[in-house]
Amino acid sequence: MAAKGRLFGLGVGPGDPELLTLKAVRLLKSARVVAYPAAKGRKGNALSIVEGFLGDDQLRLALIYPVTTEVLPPPLSYETVIRDFYDDAAGQVATHLEAGRDVAVVCEGDPFFYGSFMYLHDRLAGRYHTEVVPGVPSIMAGAAVLGAPLVYRNQTLSVISGVLPEDELEHRLAGCEAAAIMKLGTNFAKVRRVLERLGLMDRALYVERATMAAQRILPLAQVAPEEVPYFSLILIPGPPWQEA
Amino acid sequence: MAAKGRLFGLGVGPGDPELLTLKAVRLLKSARVVAYPAAKGRKGNALSIVEGFLGDDQLRLALIYPVTTEVLPPPLSYETVIRDFYDDAAGQVATHLEAGRDVAVVCEGDPFFYGSFMYLHDRLAGRYHTEVVPGVPSIMAGAAVLGAPLVYRNQTLSVISGVLPEDELEHRLAGCEAAAIMKLGTNFAKVRRVLERLGLMDRALYVERATMAAQRILPLAQVAPEEVPYFSLILIPGPPWQEA
Ligand SMILES: C[S@@+](CC[C@H](N)C(=O)[O-])C[C@H]1O[C@@H](n2cnc3c(N)ncnc32)[C@H](O)[C@@H]1O
Ligand SMILES: C[S@@+](CC[C@H](N)C(=O)[O-])C[C@H]1O[C@@H](n2cnc3c(N)ncnc32)[C@H](O)[C@@H]1O
Repeated sequence: MAAKGRLFGLGVGPGDPELLTLKAVRLLKSARVVAYPAAKGRKGNALSIVEGFLGDDQLRLALIYPVTTEVLPPPLSYETVIRDFYDDAAGQVATHLEAGRDVAVVCEGDPFFYGSFMYLHDRLAGRYHTEVVPGVPSIMAGAAVLGAPLVYRNQTLSVISGVLPEDELEHRLAGCEAAAIMKLGTNFAKVRRVLERLGLMDRALYVERATMAAQRILPLAQVAPEEVPYFSLILIPGPPWQEA
Repeated sequence: MAAKGRLFGLGVGPGDPELLTLKAVRLLKSARVVAYPAAKGRKGNALSIVEGFLGDDQLRLALIYPVTTEVLPPPLSYETVIRDFYDDAAGQVATHLEAGRDVAVVCEGDPFFYGSFMYLHDRLAGRYHTEVVPGVPSIMAGAAVLGAPLVYRNQTLSVISGVLPEDELEHRLAGCEAAAIMKLGTNFAKVRRVLERLGLMDRALYVERATMAAQRILPLAQVAPEEVPYFSLILIPGPPWQEA
């Protein structure tokens, strides 16, 4: 019986292909199958990042999200639709692993930091040799391009999803020392209202598509809510300790 | 008048030299001066990580910490001693920049995530062209080697320093969804007491020297407090969402 393939979850960083690690590049190039998440009809951000490293002989496996929003018309439920999607995606990956082919799943940013790879990992890691290569997360890339040291000395950093209800966002941001708010998109207006109420507008920095070709940095007050893309975040750096 | 040198803050990842990004390697190799923080008489972790990439013609500038603990005998104060150290270190770096030499400061993990580079950045970024290259932070590397997805979907991640007083640690960890606790070392026993009181021992994972040659993973309950090194952390992964 042939040996089973190995599963790799490769963090590919926030956008700039030069932010891949040496290890991710090595494992990416040696994998027989490269799997990537993508929305229907789109190439997917993770594939765009790594495309330049791939050879013609490598198989590409698209894992196509069935939905792009969490609000679905009844009787559909997001939870069920997504569970079925990951079950199916894990099955497709497993078919290659059973046939002895190594599969590298490319993950935007870091795989275990809000990454969709986590749901494949939870379904497959018990059955196949699995290795995860950490990557540069979007919040670190955001801080770097904003020139904003994020968290000093013994400060606490809170990483928060913009999808949360308004009162919960307010609760979690009140009294925070340093914070990062992910998943803006259609949640942007709500998040900004909370920052205004908490008096945090002066400290909050906005960046979209950090390290990508279309990167954009502008003052939070000038952002047009209807133009905020999914790949955007807000940072509230900790108060500088011992600024010169 | 010759042009001034440029300042680079390069994240070099948590230990494994293969976790440098392509961009960090490129800028590291092209810098005339490579500066690194180190304790007196030690090589320093950041230099150990990058040594294999350096050429004989590159200048090495050690920035030697005057102290290794935050508790100093009076009349010394940690704040003053450290401020003087960073003023002096910034001065040394500035001398090279003024002379037109590019300086790459190597930073363990990510530069803006509790990194000592932040204090050089705050003193120098206003005067010199400065670029920061984000790196893989220790908490992402820890999650990867532990095989532990860290934060699911819309969960909040709290990153907390083990230096905090016991009651503040307890306050910040109570009701957390996902958490990372940094700076263990001599703070370990205190942190573990808090986790025991909060009933978090079953969820908490411990790793020391993640991705370094001497990496060690063991159950939190079996860790000997007096042996906990500075380069160690505890992760409390968020509850899995939709585990298969
Ligand atoms: C599902 S999470 C994935 C996070 C990713 N695994 C990481 O390590 O950053 C997607 C969110 O990450 C943030 N994000 C990812 N890449 C980004 C980028 N290049 N610029 C700004 N935000 C980004 C956005 O907030 C986006 O809504
Ligand atoms: C001053 S902070 C620097 C953090 C670093 N800039 C980063 O991005 O991870 C030092 C703390 O980071 C953590 N740390 C750094 N490297 C580590 C490693 N390889 N394994 C475990 N913990 C590490 C430890 O908690 C340590 O006390």
